[in-house]
Amino acid sequence: MLIVQKYGGTSVADTDRIKKVARFAADTAKQGNKVVVVVSAMSGETDRLLKLGHVIASETKQSPDRELDALISTGETSTAALMALALQSIGQPAVSLTASQIRIVTDSCHQRAKMKYIETGRINSELNKGNIVIITGFQGVDEEGDLTTIGRGGSDTSAVAIAAALHADCCEIYSDVDGLYSADPNVCKNAVKIDSSSYEELLETAGAGAKVVHMHAVELAAKHDVPLQLKRSPSIEAGGSVRSGTKVTREEINMEQVLVSTVSHTSSEAKISVRDVPHKVGIVSRIFQPLAKANINVDMIVQNVASNLKSDVSFTIAKPDLKKAMQLSEIAAREIGAGKVEMAGDVSKISIVGIGMRSHAGVAAKMFETLAKEGIDIQMISTSEIKVSVVIDAKFMQKAVDALHHAFIS
Amino acid sequence: MLIVQKYGGTSVADTDRIKKVARFAADTAKQGNKVVVVVSAMSGETDRLLKLGHVIASETKQSPDRELDALISTGETSTAALMALALQSIGQPAVSLTASQIRIVTDSCHQRAKMKYIETGRINSELNKGNIVIITGFQGVDEEGDLTTIGRGGSDTSAVAIAAALHADCCEIYSDVDGLYSADPNVCKNAVKIDSSSYEELLETAGAGAKVVHMHAVELAAKHDVPLQLKRSPSIEAGGSVRSGTKVTREEINMEQVLVSTVSHTSSEAKISVRDVPHKVGIVSRIFQPLAKANINVDMIVQNVASNLKSDVSFTIAKPDLKKAMQLSEIAAREIGAGKVEMAGDVSKISIVGIGMRSHAGVAAKMFETLAKEGIDIQMISTSEIKVSVVIDAKFMQKAVDALHHAFIS
Repeated sequence: MLIVQKYGGTSVADTDRIKKVARFAADTAKQGNKVVVVVSAMSGETDRLLKLGHVIASETKQSPDRELDALISTGETSTAALMALALQSIGQPAVSLTASQIRIVTDSCHQRAKMKYIETGRINSELNKGNIVIITGFQGVDEEGDLTTIGRGGSDTSAVAIAAALHADCCEIYSDVDGLYSADPNVCKNAVKIDSSSYEELLETAGAGAKVVHMHAVELAAKHDVPLQLKRSPSIEAGGSVRSGTKVTREEINMEQVLVSTVSHTSSEAKISVRDVPHKVGIVSRIFQPLAKANINVDMIVQNVASNLKSDVSFTIAKPDLKKAMQLSEIAAREIGAGKVEMAGDVSKISIVGIGMRSHAGVAAKMFETLAKEGIDIQMISTSEIKVSVVIDAKFMQKAVDALHHAFIS
Repeated sequence: MLIVQKYGGTSVADTDRIKKVARFAADTAKQGNKVVVVVSAMSGETDRLLKLGHVIASETKQSPDRELDALISTGETSTAALMALALQSIGQPAVSLTASQIRIVTDSCHQRAKMKYIETGRINSELNKGNIVIITGFQGVDEEGDLTTIGRGGSDTSAVAIAAALHADCCEIYSDVDGLYSADPNVCKNAVKIDSSSYEELLETAGAGAKVVHMHAVELAAKHDVPLQLKRSPSIEAGGSVRSGTKVTREEINMEQVLVSTVSHTSSEAKISVRDVPHKVGIVSRIFQPLAKANINVDMIVQNVASNLKSDVSFTIAKPDLKKAMQLSEIAAREIGAGKVEMAGDVSKISIVGIGMRSHAGVAAKMFETLAKEGIDIQMISTSEIKVSVVIDAKFMQKAVDALHHAFIS
């Protein structure tokens, strides 16, 4: 088998953890596999470098992005070299390669470059020599030979892209979480680990899934049909062995058609409602454009178009943005002739996700009924093909997750 | 003018110093010069990275050198990016380039690679766009695209090689010393800074010169006729301005034919003498081969071939090597049928250097006479065309330097 293993920053946080990862990767190779290891910077290193950069470049006129890329990409280069040394020191032939040496070619959009193609010649020739190949995640190189980076969490995406380019049998993502859970174990004591899931389900769990793997990497895996394994890193797992995690593949393969597989939640969001928005083409964008300009990230949006000429628009945002968002929304409301702007400062979004919803009616209804029985008022509802999300008062979050987990899972 | 400026580790030790260097380089550009800046790693960074590497790779079977190069070269890459950011933030267009981007091509001898050629296309095109070009010192890249390093002190050599390749008008080496002195100012209160010197003189001052610039860089400058300026860094000099340092050129240009320009000294050396070595071809090498194998660096060697069939061989070494060197020399002496092996544990080498010696007789005689007047016994003598060195008891070092400086310089 050809296996790509990706280790995040906490998995390689110090020399001790790097050694543990090396031992595990070497064992994988000894079992007869070809192994490619994709590494992040040691945790804290990217921030340390960025801080140095920002101390120096407080107000550059030229965009600092090209140089910030050159600066922070040294984090992954160091880890890759250290990993190669760790493997060599236990007798495992290994070689580190940067994105520039391989030619992981991206556009020139520094700090958030998009991958164009990956040359596999050097990787394959090193694998054929019996080497474990260690590759710097997060990095790319543009056509001019300048280093780029593909944005935070990019090492997951690098790993999946490399797995796709090499037609690898599997891409294993090692983090400090041992897989995808049916709900947050800190919130719901009945939460269980999910053995297998699909790209689509994982994408819909968003917040919950993002703790395990970067969502853009999942999209890429889905596109190229790269099987993912989400596991806890051998450098974090007690004893250095690895427990089975969550396997993520296309829906058709090995997929039990469970109705609901996860109950996920967010906490500490805020909600804003603009009442009586006139029903006119393009008018809603006049509420959201000022928020976008102010870099305020809007999560869920619900517009309830009533039969008359006015409707209510509600949306959720991160709590720290509430004050600024209220100001902007009130200005917008006046300009477009809408009514009152109301807010709720402490709401939680609860979602149930499951491939099985496709073929089953009544899932949403059962969800609403379950919450009603607990006396929990639903403030917003949004649904997709395999997901139902509701916004409720944050103080009911735990109760809601527990009740839904009990009703749908166990 | 096209000027190459090289800044060592202490000159770029922190963000504050990097900013000061940036201001100075930007001023140089504003005066109408094209400027290339060659940087070392921030001081301490290379050692920090090497330590990480050695913690991990205590006993690798594969040579760790390729990965150590990949690891430590990140030090220069970070500094170069930070310097570019610092220049941009004061409105000076700048771009950082690694050895791999430029193609500073070396052989594949990791950790001590030899430069083969430097491609100048990208450097020139960036200079023509009005950029200051910041280049990582110390780094190279082999024909396979793997990173190499050219050994400690290599940034000086990088700077001179780049200056030669670009046909630069001058290569300025900035360190924490403001030039070459006629003697160590800490030892001799009359020591004065030398305004201009020659490659040859600088090479002969060895120890004294090495504090200012790496000797291999001087050899390269001599070969390609690159004028050097040795100055104290604007980031270390109080006030951030730079005083005139020492200009180093070929002998013919601007060279006052002073008799003796510098009195240099070493301290803490040890001396070993092997008595009554049989006079036979190849026999001396049997003393020095075991020392070389044990990695003991021999500095000065004097063999006094007497008229009979035996001679004495004396040599100096670093003091910490004395015990081991004595053991090896005693074994060798027995094997080759030599006599007693004697040692002196605390000697100092005093040298006078000057281009003027070429055309003046009696310089050595005046040196010996000066030392005799002070009651200083000479234990070894070695001379070259423009240098006379003597080994004396280390307790007379200061007295000897003072007396010789007074006799020859001021």
